[in-house]
Amino acid sequence: MATLGIDLGGTKISSILFTEKGDVLEKKAVTLNQRKGPEVGALITEQIIHMKEFSLSHGDSIKSIGISVPGISCSKTGLVWAPNIPGWENYPLLDDIRTVSGNIAVTIESDRTCHLLGELWMGNAKGCSNVVFLAVGTGIGAGILVNGEVLRGSNDIAGSIGWMALDRPFHENYTSCGCFEYHASGEGIAKVTRQYLRHDDKYRGELAYKEPEEITSYDVLNAYNNGDPLANKVIGECIEFWGMATANLVSIFNPEKIIFGGGLFGPAASLLPDIKNEAEKWAQPVSIRQVILDTSALEGDAGVYGAGYIALENLSEKKYDLGDV
Amino acid sequence: MATLGIDLGGTKISSILFTEKGDVLEKKAVTLNQRKGPEVGALITEQIIHMKEFSLSHGDSIKSIGISVPGISCSKTGLVWAPNIPGWENYPLLDDIRTVSGNIAVTIESDRTCHLLGELWMGNAKGCSNVVFLAVGTGIGAGILVNGEVLRGSNDIAGSIGWMALDRPFHENYTSCGCFEYHASGEGIAKVTRQYLRHDDKYRGELAYKEPEEITSYDVLNAYNNGDPLANKVIGECIEFWGMATANLVSIFNPEKIIFGGGLFGPAASLLPDIKNEAEKWAQPVSIRQVILDTSALEGDAGVYGAGYIALENLSEKKYDLGDV
Repeated sequence: MATLGIDLGGTKISSILFTEKGDVLEKKAVTLNQRKGPEVGALITEQIIHMKEFSLSHGDSIKSIGISVPGISCSKTGLVWAPNIPGWENYPLLDDIRTVSGNIAVTIESDRTCHLLGELWMGNAKGCSNVVFLAVGTGIGAGILVNGEVLRGSNDIAGSIGWMALDRPFHENYTSCGCFEYHASGEGIAKVTRQYLRHDDKYRGELAYKEPEEITSYDVLNAYNNGDPLANKVIGECIEFWGMATANLVSIFNPEKIIFGGGLFGPAASLLPDIKNEAEKWAQPVSIRQVILDTSALEGDAGVYGAGYIALENLSEKKYDLGDV
Repeated sequence: MATLGIDLGGTKISSILFTEKGDVLEKKAVTLNQRKGPEVGALITEQIIHMKEFSLSHGDSIKSIGISVPGISCSKTGLVWAPNIPGWENYPLLDDIRTVSGNIAVTIESDRTCHLLGELWMGNAKGCSNVVFLAVGTGIGAGILVNGEVLRGSNDIAGSIGWMALDRPFHENYTSCGCFEYHASGEGIAKVTRQYLRHDDKYRGELAYKEPEEITSYDVLNAYNNGDPLANKVIGECIEFWGMATANLVSIFNPEKIIFGGGLFGPAASLLPDIKNEAEKWAQPVSIRQVILDTSALEGDAGVYGAGYIALENLSEKKYDLGDV
């Protein structure tokens, strides 16, 4: 018996065929190459067909499919809202998959939930009942486990922590993405750096020699590691925001662990001690002493492992079942 | 069959003897009168003895007792940490109760959880699965229901939202109580008002004629309702903080409702529309449109009703059981 995990990211689709124990039978990745709308749906069904054939040719069969999507999945309708994939405002992904899945069980989840569950299954959240996966990439979101269960909220949009209010007064820049995401996401770091560059005529550091619109958060982190003063200012503020957000999650959830993942953790992982120092100032003092801050063990594979896990869970408990598929 | 709910507050003990359906058989309140340590424990056991006798004299008997405490109750040890009751740093309340409870089941919970459960049983949270009870009194805390279950965290101190970080940079005033509580609790409102009075020589409003150390949050709310400019400044800032905190709870939990209770809501209840307006600026935009902000239906009785509910729940599901008592 095999299960299939599929992770739809902003630029590629990763698939892994798992045994029940989580061993990898087959692994594949394809890039989206600017595909949009139903073309992305078709690329997902292609992966399913490939993995079904692979499985059959090895005398096995897929019993359950889990899919991680970069946005919000409505468990009642099978519709997906993925802001970074053109044409996926309310995309009927489940309908696409049903055309090729036959009687295989199908589960669709948000990437924030899959990242969390991947770490719970095979990564740094193993054995935890109360844990937060804080994903800092282009945007910011969190997968949250409470009493061993995923926090979904009343309409499947819990964990939208990029909208966390951390700095008065309200600024119009926060309207489209939220205060925390504006200041401390990958996109945010690039934006804030460009803004400082525009207002600092005297700065002659390494970021001054780049085309402002091409500066990425990775450039800023590199410059920070080289001791660049502008990068020091930007990342110093980020550490403050990451620390305050960590403090808030600790005071609210009293979790065993907070796991930092997404594209930036990664390269910002060395900042965890500074983030903990900042969080210690703000958080409930008993809770912050008990929590462990850690990075993702699975890094870029957390989503596809989480997708494999929800596929497996669906078979054993039906708790993620989307109905009669 | 009867259950007994006891609410230990900072100044009094309220007890209600309930039927299974939640009808009130007997109600009693006694003041603490500066009692401390074991004297408070003895006053609680007196209430139990009184209610046992009342029950027996009516041909009934108490099957389960629930107790709400103003602090943290450790479900594993029965020890209670209640900062506002002298000598209750790690008070063995369960041991006291066992001397008079016989074979009656006993459950101890934090007041924030009991307020939440009181509203769930008999108040404005009826039928909710994802709801936050935001208690603003002397301090600030929250009882939080996720997927129908109380959020406790890994060591029973979840919901410590008085520690929420909402305003950079960190200020040493936040060290003892947290940023949100410093600015927007009852105690905080009084402190901030006194600070403004010290630095404003020109102010001649109604608060200038009070002894600064005697000013309470209720005085400031009254002055606000009378159009006083200093009170307007203080309460205006509070609305900002309450709105930001509401936004954060909405973005994180995607709840059906947030219920405002505690001593201040109460008199600040008329500010809910202003708080919602502020929260709308900051919060995840879909989530904030779905949430309902409401006040406590039970007000001062939320804790004792919650204590009655945990007593009843303990009988039916044993989910709050503290062991063989």
